[in-house]
Amino acid sequence: MICSNCKEKTAVYNRKYSGQKLCKKCFCKSIERKVAKTITKYKMVSKNDKIAYGLSGGKDSVTLLYIMDKMQREHKNFSIDIITVDEGIEKYREDSIKIVDQIVENLNLNYNLVTFKELYGFTLDEIVKILIKKGDLETKACSYCGVLRRRALNNTAKELGAKKLATAHNLDDEAETILMNITRSDITRLLRYDPIPYEKHPHFVPRIKPFREIPEKEITLYAYYKNLPIHSIECPYASESMRRNIKTVMSILEQKNPSVKFNLLKFYDQIFMKNQADLQKFDSFKACIKCNEPTSSEICKFCELMEKIS
Amino acid sequence: MICSNCKEKTAVYNRKYSGQKLCKKCFCKSIERKVAKTITKYKMVSKNDKIAYGLSGGKDSVTLLYIMDKMQREHKNFSIDIITVDEGIEKYREDSIKIVDQIVENLNLNYNLVTFKELYGFTLDEIVKILIKKGDLETKACSYCGVLRRRALNNTAKELGAKKLATAHNLDDEAETILMNITRSDITRLLRYDPIPYEKHPHFVPRIKPFREIPEKEITLYAYYKNLPIHSIECPYASESMRRNIKTVMSILEQKNPSVKFNLLKFYDQIFMKNQADLQKFDSFKACIKCNEPTSSEICKFCELMEKIS
Repeated sequence: MICSNCKEKTAVYNRKYSGQKLCKKCFCKSIERKVAKTITKYKMVSKNDKIAYGLSGGKDSVTLLYIMDKMQREHKNFSIDIITVDEGIEKYREDSIKIVDQIVENLNLNYNLVTFKELYGFTLDEIVKILIKKGDLETKACSYCGVLRRRALNNTAKELGAKKLATAHNLDDEAETILMNITRSDITRLLRYDPIPYEKHPHFVPRIKPFREIPEKEITLYAYYKNLPIHSIECPYASESMRRNIKTVMSILEQKNPSVKFNLLKFYDQIFMKNQADLQKFDSFKACIKCNEPTSSEICKFCELMEKIS
Repeated sequence: MICSNCKEKTAVYNRKYSGQKLCKKCFCKSIERKVAKTITKYKMVSKNDKIAYGLSGGKDSVTLLYIMDKMQREHKNFSIDIITVDEGIEKYREDSIKIVDQIVENLNLNYNLVTFKELYGFTLDEIVKILIKKGDLETKACSYCGVLRRRALNNTAKELGAKKLATAHNLDDEAETILMNITRSDITRLLRYDPIPYEKHPHFVPRIKPFREIPEKEITLYAYYKNLPIHSIECPYASESMRRNIKTVMSILEQKNPSVKFNLLKFYDQIFMKNQADLQKFDSFKACIKCNEPTSSEICKFCELMEKIS
């Protein structure tokens, strides 16, 4: 099987949704090009932007950093500030932070490590222990982790004076989120995934997701070919994740329709991006009565969760 | 378990998505009320409308006819004209037509039987034989049946001077169609499911689906309690249906989220009904170069399919 791009080397990857068969080199080039195209298409980066970058040490965040750092060194039109969040998950996060340290040292980038313990007074492990002690079997570690991590990333990015906050969410993440929120009919939440970075509220640093159109499988393959140092141990709380069900559903859909994840993004873009103005009415912010951060309810999700463990 | 509505009789049905436990009588009343509410909510029937009704003899169409006929006799503000389509499927359709004859006679309604053979020159069985002979293993009986049946129903309803064309599509059908078209990113097709009957084009009789918000399971139960005569043999071509995959996906989603089908409809209504004007640009009709009926392509699906077997 010969590469359908260079027509020289042996193809190592069969891209089902496009019909291309690619050699190692053309495959890696195609990923880099797609990231650049995505950034341009959604106007994710403006000239001289300071970009805060959420680096966990997992395959997605390490790979995107590798590609964006390469871009930055070539074009010198934006800068990257790393933010790593230590949630305090024993036998899991320590190892990934070692990898992060190594990457950051090699790339010579500004690096900020923030911890749940310092920011909120508890590690995630401590929060889980409190929930168990209180007999709360409903609230999951992932709910806390998501809300607390998002706040940590946003507030640190803001303190750094960053213009954008980049995360390595991939096509699978995005398609699952879209499908999940459609099946919940949660329009408000759907509106918040607009890929064009816009300031929903002065408090929020606009988010960008340059891996939005890259399938998870291809990121893993790129990391493997480039021999990137990645932390591949699964989070001990991952089995609780609500996403498992949607992942199963997506893989059944994909068997009959290899483009289903792209289709969900396309659907999203056609409906939500073009109708933002019309749909804004679904979304409005108030100030949380406890912490004053913007929220759509009386009390924000962060304060609601923190109350449960106090 | 006591009925949560009348608080007297024994409950026979546990409605998971609402938490209600209902006795036989309250359950049946709730279905009738829901149909009436759906008709009002989407303004499906106007005063003195002549409603063409697609009756196949299956549980859904028999049950909705039973309920709408009851309504019509109570309120006398619309009339019903039955249309039954005989596709020409041996060892299947004959039996259902016997049931249809019996129903129509009892209800004393205007009845029109149309056949694929008379309308198009072929029975569905003959079409399948031609496809096999031609070595076409891709095109499915269900594709022909859907397109040919829709045209038969619309054109007969038009000849009868009907103001609406009612079909017994239920919540499961509608939710599956919405999810299927989202996963295909087919906005044009999604736009055509607007539950408010509107004239997309003068050629098309506006469609109404009063069972839109009733789960399939509840229709079956209603038909059983009312002891309605129904044709319950599965179509011999049903195994080919593209819907199987979506049905599997839906049942996985439903396990975690009993309201998922309602949520998909709600999502649809919020996004598509309220944005029809904005989204119309996705949809536009041309005249088919072969039959002159409205279509979104050069040649309509009907003519495209008929060409394959000519």
